[in-house]
Amino acid sequence: MKYARITIAIAALVVVIGLENTRAQDESSFGGFNLVDQNGNIRKPKDYRDRYQMLGAYTVTDPKGDQMHFTYASPGAAEYYRQNKNFADGTVLVKEILRTDHAKMTSGNAEWATDTEAWFVMVKDARGRYSSNALWGDGWGWALFKSDAPDKQVATDYKKECRSCHQPAKADDWVYVKGYPVLQSK
Amino acid sequence: MKYARITIAIAALVVVIGLENTRAQDESSFGGFNLVDQNGNIRKPKDYRDRYQMLGAYTVTDPKGDQMHFTYASPGAAEYYRQNKNFADGTVLVKEILRTDHAKMTSGNAEWATDTEAWFVMVKDARGRYSSNALWGDGWGWALFKSDAPDKQVATDYKKECRSCHQPAKADDWVYVKGYPVLQSK
Repeated sequence: MKYARITIAIAALVVVIGLENTRAQDESSFGGFNLVDQNGNIRKPKDYRDRYQMLGAYTVTDPKGDQMHFTYASPGAAEYYRQNKNFADGTVLVKEILRTDHAKMTSGNAEWATDTEAWFVMVKDARGRYSSNALWGDGWGWALFKSDAPDKQVATDYKKECRSCHQPAKADDWVYVKGYPVLQSK
Repeated sequence: MKYARITIAIAALVVVIGLENTRAQDESSFGGFNLVDQNGNIRKPKDYRDRYQMLGAYTVTDPKGDQMHFTYASPGAAEYYRQNKNFADGTVLVKEILRTDHAKMTSGNAEWATDTEAWFVMVKDARGRYSSNALWGDGWGWALFKSDAPDKQVATDYKKECRSCHQPAKADDWVYVKGYPVLQSK
């Protein structure tokens, strides 16, 4: 009986540890649909700056003020892409549109990111879910959040508001992968 | 006996899982000294692009070709910094110096990073270890790796080769924190 009790206690512990690991695995591997409700509405992930991996950055010149774009992906996204040459179902991409500042620094004239103006969020959908939702199509869910209400999704039709800017990247599954060196090598 | 054998087997499993978790914890929380040998020689972390978090990016204008600098930190570094206003002992920073390319894109004239030319690695040392090693001082270990031999540390004296460029950031513990928005907010 004594051994049986210990066995049960340890077995319970193993199950608990196992569940913890499964949950961590779930959250860390392409868990984009945790951010999507049953109608296809997309939430912006919390803590992506702390938890996601960086894909890369674009600096965009603009007479009204340069911007930087930082793109983050859910953990493991780049490794999967390097192995499979495509994004895993459920991969989340977050592109921050940031204001910039600049100064002469020891390395030369340098520019860096300051406040975030907007966030574009994409969730990879390899199965054609939410076909009646105008923010889903071409293999992705598309979402936009702006700094005046950072948690409010404001896009209404990805074909009008998102796709035109991504058209040149259509052959790369609509993502500007050339600016993301980690997708080519570690 | 049957229960005893099962108990031992499960207990062994628990120990193995426990060790795995301890190791993961170690690696994920400021484990910079895993990269340092007993003489203070610093290795470049593997897989930092997949495992570390992004702090930010600088674009540096140069007539010979613009550069981008991407800075990554060991997991949890930014959260610790936001709470404590300093870097945790063992925090690792990796700054990639990257070549760039540019083109007119749908967002405007844009610039992005391509090949890595060099890596600067810093390991936070809050305790003044390795005082006889010329690559340690001012609260950090300092290291440099170049693309012709990416795993060979080539700096010899941080005071001559590293500190002068970091001098303007002395008040921020030698790090150009103003370009790293995640250190201010999530």
